[in-house]
Amino acid sequence: MIPGGNIINYISMKNPETLDHKSLKRDIHACADLIKDYVYRTPIMRSRLINDLAGCNISFKCENFQRMGAFKMRGASHAILRLSEEERSRGVVTHSSGNMAQALALSARMLNVPAYIVMPENAPKVKKQAVKSYGGIITECESTLDAREREAQKIVSSRGASFIHPSNDLNVIMGQGTAALELLQEADDYDFIVAPVGGGGLLAGTAIAALTVEKKIDVIGAEPAEADDAYRSLKSGKIEKNKTALTIADGLRTELGDKNFPIIYELVDDIILASENAIVDAMRLIWERMKIIIEPSCAVPLAAILENRGRFQHKKVGIILSGGNVDLDNLPFTVNKDGLQ
Amino acid sequence: MIPGGNIINYISMKNPETLDHKSLKRDIHACADLIKDYVYRTPIMRSRLINDLAGCNISFKCENFQRMGAFKMRGASHAILRLSEEERSRGVVTHSSGNMAQALALSARMLNVPAYIVMPENAPKVKKQAVKSYGGIITECESTLDAREREAQKIVSSRGASFIHPSNDLNVIMGQGTAALELLQEADDYDFIVAPVGGGGLLAGTAIAALTVEKKIDVIGAEPAEADDAYRSLKSGKIEKNKTALTIADGLRTELGDKNFPIIYELVDDIILASENAIVDAMRLIWERMKIIIEPSCAVPLAAILENRGRFQHKKVGIILSGGNVDLDNLPFTVNKDGLQ
Repeated sequence: MIPGGNIINYISMKNPETLDHKSLKRDIHACADLIKDYVYRTPIMRSRLINDLAGCNISFKCENFQRMGAFKMRGASHAILRLSEEERSRGVVTHSSGNMAQALALSARMLNVPAYIVMPENAPKVKKQAVKSYGGIITECESTLDAREREAQKIVSSRGASFIHPSNDLNVIMGQGTAALELLQEADDYDFIVAPVGGGGLLAGTAIAALTVEKKIDVIGAEPAEADDAYRSLKSGKIEKNKTALTIADGLRTELGDKNFPIIYELVDDIILASENAIVDAMRLIWERMKIIIEPSCAVPLAAILENRGRFQHKKVGIILSGGNVDLDNLPFTVNKDGLQ
Repeated sequence: MIPGGNIINYISMKNPETLDHKSLKRDIHACADLIKDYVYRTPIMRSRLINDLAGCNISFKCENFQRMGAFKMRGASHAILRLSEEERSRGVVTHSSGNMAQALALSARMLNVPAYIVMPENAPKVKKQAVKSYGGIITECESTLDAREREAQKIVSSRGASFIHPSNDLNVIMGQGTAALELLQEADDYDFIVAPVGGGGLLAGTAIAALTVEKKIDVIGAEPAEADDAYRSLKSGKIEKNKTALTIADGLRTELGDKNFPIIYELVDDIILASENAIVDAMRLIWERMKIIIEPSCAVPLAAILENRGRFQHKKVGIILSGGNVDLDNLPFTVNKDGLQ
């Protein structure tokens, strides 16, 4: 049996209470071991000034410094590594206009696997070029989710390629969790770990990583108030749809899936929300004070902490900084010019 | 005798050939030891993609992550630490609208010393606020160099404060050199170290640091072609003035001084130039690929290397990334929108 291959069993039980923590712990360690030559062990940074502002002690796990600029590299490489030689020869396919497109293309190139990336025809040219630069084979389609899924399905049928979902895939979830695993390997006494939640892969993986230490760590998802499907899903106990997705945090406009929701429902303690202004302010704060580039989605945990300050006072908090891929020609700071001056 | 206090002797000999390398080596180590509780040991970063583009193996010493965001913290704290208790009680003064203003204010606050900062009345509000936030006492004046010097001199006379020049001060030079010293402590087999040159303090200090290792390392200054006073000074053997200073690299519009020029003249191997377009491209490259924020002046070494590629092929190169204080409301990328896409 491939370690990690059995996680589907936990989910197929359909009862989240029965998730087998011991196996999850073993599997995330096996995942970290498997992907270690394909991802960077990213640095952990701290800022006194931000600690003073937030009133807590924050460690930032800097996945903006990951290969291709985001944590998605972890899940993408893990998903491909779990395929058989025969499956790999037929290639992998995903639909994405964001970081998963680049992550799958780069992981596939490193493993000598063809990567078919379905992208909406109106996706920014710079994103298409990034995918091409990593050797991804792009198929363009209309910008609806329907058209994207249909096009990806066509490639699965015609080429026998394996479809890799950007967040609702158990191997992807495990891979994403290795960012938090590395954070916890450096220090295991966090009170909270906060990760952004969009499709749910990173948050579910982070919650699995938190099982690997003895201390009970509260795992919190941070979500834009303008795309609060996960927040409502955790409350209602079933997967809710977004009512709006008018957020600058473009990586978090997606919704939870049937593979990651059971994990989130059992293992995640809470989801907190951030307003749009707070997201832009937090992004600017990290750029100006930490001198690192993060994308808007990546600013949501700090934004949500600053808007829910009381809960975190004097606590030790880990934040997964998810990625740093921004379009420098289209920055949000001008709309908020007087925000932090 | 205070270690380091004797460096004035080398210079007063007026013959750069007689610079005493052994004493310089001893003094820069003493300086590093003295300032170590006041500055960060900044990280060293590398980028495969930038190495591929440049055809050499570059290590970036990230002083953009230094306290207050620039290497100036090293020289400023060293200069204050070399003052007597009595001198410290009367305060320090400098004139600057840039990083030295913030560095002196912060260093002074850490050492409980009053810091008087003369700033031109038209300096950006955000810079004045940064100085105030570090406890600096600002005096505004007209924006001419004359007016700034006059105002600083007044404070020296009236308060007995010690004037600290941003670059033409031997203790400042030694302090700035500790960035390269740390780089060389991690690995001492560089072929080149490249530092930006404006007032000359960082470059002179870097050249002193290069004396501390056995291998002969070529120390190169990188300067905007639009403000090439140091380039011409090294050729002519005397301090030349800028003909223009129309460069985006606002930290490098200044000129060499009589304390740092003899050191540069003896110890620096060459000065290379960068065009304005290359500076903006290199800045964008570092932002996009390394996900770190650097200011325009800080991009000049990489820009000059990319424009003088042949010389550095397959060599091991250290670059001092000098600082990361940029005005996010006024970024240069739009003028160069299609540069790197």
